[in-house]
Amino acid sequence: MDVTKSNFNEVLPKIKESIKNSSFMSIDCELTGLNVARNINAFDTPAEYYNKVRVNSRDFLVIQYGLSIFRYDSECDTFKHQSYNFYIFRKPYDKNIPDQRFLCQTSSIDFLITQGFDFNKLFKEGISYLNSVEEEKWKINLEEKRKNSAVLRLNPNRDSIPIPDNLENFINDVVKILDNFLESNDTEVQLPRCNAFARRLVYQTAAEKFGDRLNVETRQMDKDRVLFAYKMRTKEEEEEIERKKYEEALEAFDSYVGFSKVLKMVRESGKLIIGHNLCLDILHTIDKFITPLPEDYQEFKQLTSAIFPMIVDTKYMSSSEKIKDLIPSTVLKNVLDTVSATPFEMPAHEIEEGAESYQINDYKEHEAGYDAFITALSFASMWKYLGKLENKSPAETFGDHRLLNKVINRIFLMNLADNQYINLQGNDLNPSRDHVFHLTFPKEWKFHNITELFSPFGSVYISWIDETSAYVSLNKKEQSGVALNTLSQSDTYSIMTYRARRAMLESKTNVAPVTGQRRKMSENISDIAEKRQKVEDNTEHDDSKWETVTKKGKRKGKTFKESTWDQ
Amino acid sequence: MDVTKSNFNEVLPKIKESIKNSSFMSIDCELTGLNVARNINAFDTPAEYYNKVRVNSRDFLVIQYGLSIFRYDSECDTFKHQSYNFYIFRKPYDKNIPDQRFLCQTSSIDFLITQGFDFNKLFKEGISYLNSVEEEKWKINLEEKRKNSAVLRLNPNRDSIPIPDNLENFINDVVKILDNFLESNDTEVQLPRCNAFARRLVYQTAAEKFGDRLNVETRQMDKDRVLFAYKMRTKEEEEEIERKKYEEALEAFDSYVGFSKVLKMVRESGKLIIGHNLCLDILHTIDKFITPLPEDYQEFKQLTSAIFPMIVDTKYMSSSEKIKDLIPSTVLKNVLDTVSATPFEMPAHEIEEGAESYQINDYKEHEAGYDAFITALSFASMWKYLGKLENKSPAETFGDHRLLNKVINRIFLMNLADNQYINLQGNDLNPSRDHVFHLTFPKEWKFHNITELFSPFGSVYISWIDETSAYVSLNKKEQSGVALNTLSQSDTYSIMTYRARRAMLESKTNVAPVTGQRRKMSENISDIAEKRQKVEDNTEHDDSKWETVTKKGKRKGKTFKESTWDQ
Repeated sequence: MDVTKSNFNEVLPKIKESIKNSSFMSIDCELTGLNVARNINAFDTPAEYYNKVRVNSRDFLVIQYGLSIFRYDSECDTFKHQSYNFYIFRKPYDKNIPDQRFLCQTSSIDFLITQGFDFNKLFKEGISYLNSVEEEKWKINLEEKRKNSAVLRLNPNRDSIPIPDNLENFINDVVKILDNFLESNDTEVQLPRCNAFARRLVYQTAAEKFGDRLNVETRQMDKDRVLFAYKMRTKEEEEEIERKKYEEALEAFDSYVGFSKVLKMVRESGKLIIGHNLCLDILHTIDKFITPLPEDYQEFKQLTSAIFPMIVDTKYMSSSEKIKDLIPSTVLKNVLDTVSATPFEMPAHEIEEGAESYQINDYKEHEAGYDAFITALSFASMWKYLGKLENKSPAETFGDHRLLNKVINRIFLMNLADNQYINLQGNDLNPSRDHVFHLTFPKEWKFHNITELFSPFGSVYISWIDETSAYVSLNKKEQSGVALNTLSQSDTYSIMTYRARRAMLESKTNVAPVTGQRRKMSENISDIAEKRQKVEDNTEHDDSKWETVTKKGKRKGKTFKESTWDQ
Repeated sequence: MDVTKSNFNEVLPKIKESIKNSSFMSIDCELTGLNVARNINAFDTPAEYYNKVRVNSRDFLVIQYGLSIFRYDSECDTFKHQSYNFYIFRKPYDKNIPDQRFLCQTSSIDFLITQGFDFNKLFKEGISYLNSVEEEKWKINLEEKRKNSAVLRLNPNRDSIPIPDNLENFINDVVKILDNFLESNDTEVQLPRCNAFARRLVYQTAAEKFGDRLNVETRQMDKDRVLFAYKMRTKEEEEEIERKKYEEALEAFDSYVGFSKVLKMVRESGKLIIGHNLCLDILHTIDKFITPLPEDYQEFKQLTSAIFPMIVDTKYMSSSEKIKDLIPSTVLKNVLDTVSATPFEMPAHEIEEGAESYQINDYKEHEAGYDAFITALSFASMWKYLGKLENKSPAETFGDHRLLNKVINRIFLMNLADNQYINLQGNDLNPSRDHVFHLTFPKEWKFHNITELFSPFGSVYISWIDETSAYVSLNKKEQSGVALNTLSQSDTYSIMTYRARRAMLESKTNVAPVTGQRRKMSENISDIAEKRQKVEDNTEHDDSKWETVTKKGKRKGKTFKESTWDQ
C-alpha cells in the first residue's frame, strides 16, 4: 500500500496495531544515491568503514521506505503479512526546517525512474520527518515564539532615509492608499508590490505618518514579498490572533514529525527487525528519522543496539555458517529464488485480512515495500530451515529467537577483504592480517612493479590506498614471514606489517582532531567527481581482472560499483 | 512545445531554420537550485560575484531550457513567435559520462512541483548534452577504442587461485555447461549468476580448460553482472562485430551531444539573445552546454562576448536610465504587466504559422519556455518604447540595434550595493565607495555597537562579512572624511577605507593560489548547511529591518532569499 501525506494519518493507527501483533518486521529504503563506498579500502576496519559511509551518505535522502509486517498464525501455520510503501520528502518550513540542499546520484535516479518510481508523487505528496535534534529545536522555537508574541510596533525613531526622486510618486500613492484605508471599514489593505528598498521606505513613511493608527507587515505571496497594512488591534484581538497562530504552529509541528512516528512505533515494539544488506538502511533510518549519527563507532553500536535490540541482516544470514553453502548468490532476488526451493521450504504466507501487501510475482523489485516483503519472506524461509536442522516444528521455530543466535545483530559489510561485519552485541572480528603488508612506493610505480616485487612469494591481492601506497595481501599466507624479512631493506619503497600500520594510524588519530579528518573528506563534490573520473578512466570493470591490471599498465584501485550496493 | 528525446531529432531542423530567420531569441533555464548567492557581500566586486556564483552553482543542473524565437514581420508589423521547452537530463554512459552527483535545493524542487513541473518526464525523457571538453574526451575515447579493438583473449598464464570447497560444486556445474555448449550449435551460453569471486574462478577455469575454444565475457543485466561464454570467432567475424560496435558508439555519441546542438545553432546565428536576470542562465548555459567556465573573470567576459556577441538582460534594461522610472518592480511578471500598458505599447505578436508557442494568458510562469516567451515580449515592448522616444517607426526600431546601445551586453547583478552589472564590452563600473569602510571588531560586538560608533555621522548600512568584520556604508556620504579621521584611533576595533581593504585583498590574492580559495569555499554541504542554519537562526527576513536589527540584538548578515533570484 502506498502511503503519502494524504492517507498517512488515516493508516497510522492500523500500522500501530499491526506492529504490536507482529512476529517480525522488515524494512527497506530507496535513496537518492547509493554510491557511498567509493573511498573504502578492502582492509579498512569496521569503524573506518562506518565513518566513511556515514560521511558519504549523509547528504543523500531516503525517498521511499518499505515496511513489511509479518504475523505468524500458528493455528494455520501461516504468516499473515501486510506491507507499506511510504513516500518520504519534506519541504522547508520557516527556520525550523531550513532550505536544505541534497545530493542525487544520476545512476540512482535513472535506475529508480526505469523501475517506475513516481518522482512527481514523491515531491508532491511525500511525508515529512524529524529526527530528535530537529524535533527538540522546533519545540524550543515554538515556546520562544509564544513568549515573544508581543507585536513589534512600527518604530518611528529611526534614521530617516531621504526618499529618492524616482520613488516620490510611488510613496505618495501609498500614503493616499493608507489615508483611504484608515477612513474605511476594512481591517487590512494590500499595498502595491515593489522592491525591498521601496518597502523600506513604505515602513518608514507609515511609521512617521500613521505610527499610532496602523501597522505594516510583509507577507510572502507566490515568490513575491508583499506589504499589508492593518489597523491597530486591541490587546484581546492581538491575543486571539496569537493563540490561533500558536495552534497552527503546533499542527504544523505535528505534521512534520510525520514518518518519524512510524519509526517510534517500530522502536517501541522491541520486535525483531529484518533487512537485506542493512548497513545503509540502518544508518539512514537512525540519522534521518531518529537521531543524528555519532562520530564514534562504539557509540554508534551502543545507540543502534538501544534503538533496535534485535536485527537480522539477511545478506549476513545468507552467507552465515549453516546456510552459505546453499546460497550461490546473496543478491536479494537470488536469495529469494534459492530459499523458495529445497532444501529450503518457503513458509505458507498470505495477505492479512483487511490489509494490503504484495505477492512474490508482483516483481516490483526496488519498490521499497516489495523489497521489504521479499526480504521478510527470505528470512522466514531461512529461519524455518534453521529450525528444521534442529528438528523443530514451524510453530516451535517461529517462537524461538535462539535459533538466530549466530546471525542476530550482525550487519553485513560489503567490499571488505575478510567477511567483516558490524557486531552489535560484542567486539567485531579481528581477523589475522599477518599476510597483509602496507607498502609505500614511488609515484611512478605501476601494478607490475608490485607484483614483481612480491613474485618470489606467490600471487598477491593489491588494495590501492593512493598513488604511492597500497595494502598488499599474500595469497600464500605462510610466506608472510619470509616476505617481510626479504623485502624490508630498500631505499625505493618501504614496507611494514598491517599491524604496525594500524598502530601508527591509531596514534595519529589520537593527535589529529576528528574535525580535521572530516574536513579532509568533505571536499566539494565537483572536485571529488573530477578526481574520481580520473581514477575511473584508468579502471576497467571486468571481473576477469581480479588482480587489477589494465591494458595500458596503469595502476588502479579496487572500485565499487553502485550496482553492487543493495544486492 | 515540449521537447524531449523522443521528438528532439524531429524538431531540430525546424529550430535551425527558425533561428536563421529570427530577429532575436530569448532563453530561460529552470534549475535544481537557485540559492547560489548566499555568501555574496553587497560590496563584492563583479569579479568576486562571478566566482562565488560560478562555484556555488556548478553542482546544480539545468533541467528545463526555454527558447522563444521572435521574427519581426515588417509587412504586418507583427512579431511571429515560436517557443520550445526542452527537458534536459542525461544518464551516465560508460566512462564518457561518469555517474555524476548533483545538488538539489529543496525549495527549488518544491517550487517546481507546485508549478506543475513533470519530474518523471524529465528523468525518463530528458535530452542529453555535452560541453566541449566532454565532447573532445569522448571523441578521443572513441578513437582509442577503435585502435584497441583487438579482442582480449582469455589468459591462462595467471596465478591460479585454489577453488574453495564451497564453490567446487558450482565450478563443476559450470564446466558441464561449457562442455555441453561446445558440443551444441549455440553461439553463446549464459552462465549461472554468482558473486564476483566466483566469476573470477569461472574465468580462471574456463581459461585453463577451454582457453583455445571459447571466450567468457561479463555483461550487465538489470543490476547483475552475468557471465556469457561464446565460441571463438574468425577474424572476419570479430571485425564485423567491432565495426558494428563502433557504429553504435558513434550513434550514442551523437545522441549525447543532444541539446548542445541547439546552443551551437544559437551561437552560430550571431543573433540578439534576450534573458531576464541572465547571470545564472548564462553561467549554466556556457558551463553545461558549451565549455567549462574559466576561473578568471576577464577570461569569462571575453569568452561570453565571443559566444554571444549581443545579449540583453531585461532585468538590467528595465532598471536602465530611460526606463527605470516607469517600472516599479523588475520581477519578470511585473515588468510584463507594466510594459503592456501606456506609456509602453506591446507590439503585435502572433504564433508563427505551423509552429507552437504560448499566449500571455497561459500563465505558465516558471515553465522555461513560457518565461522565455514573456521575456521576449517584455523586451520587444521596451525596445519599441526606446524607438518611440526617438520618433522611429516600429519597422525602423526593430531593425536598429543602436537603440539598445545603453543596455546591450550588460548582465544584471543582484544583491550588490550600487547597481553593479557585468559589462561584457568594457570595464565594469567603478563606483565611488569612499563612504564605505571596512571595520574589524571584537566577536562580542552587536549591531548596535556599530551603529553607535558611527552615530555622530548619521545612519549606516552594514554588510556583514563574518563575526568580526563588516563593510559599513554611510548614508551621509559627505561625512566620510570626518568619520575616518575621528574613528581611526582605537584599540578595540580597526577601520580602513574600502579602497585600502581592496588593495590589501588584491595583494593577498596574488600570493594565495586560486585553488586554495576554491578549497576553502567547497566544504561539505552538510557543514555549510549547518553553519548557514546558525546564521539564519539569528536572522529575520523582514524588510522593515533594513538596518538589520534583531529582536534579541544579535547581529546578522544581509541574506539573500532564493525567492529573489529569478525575478
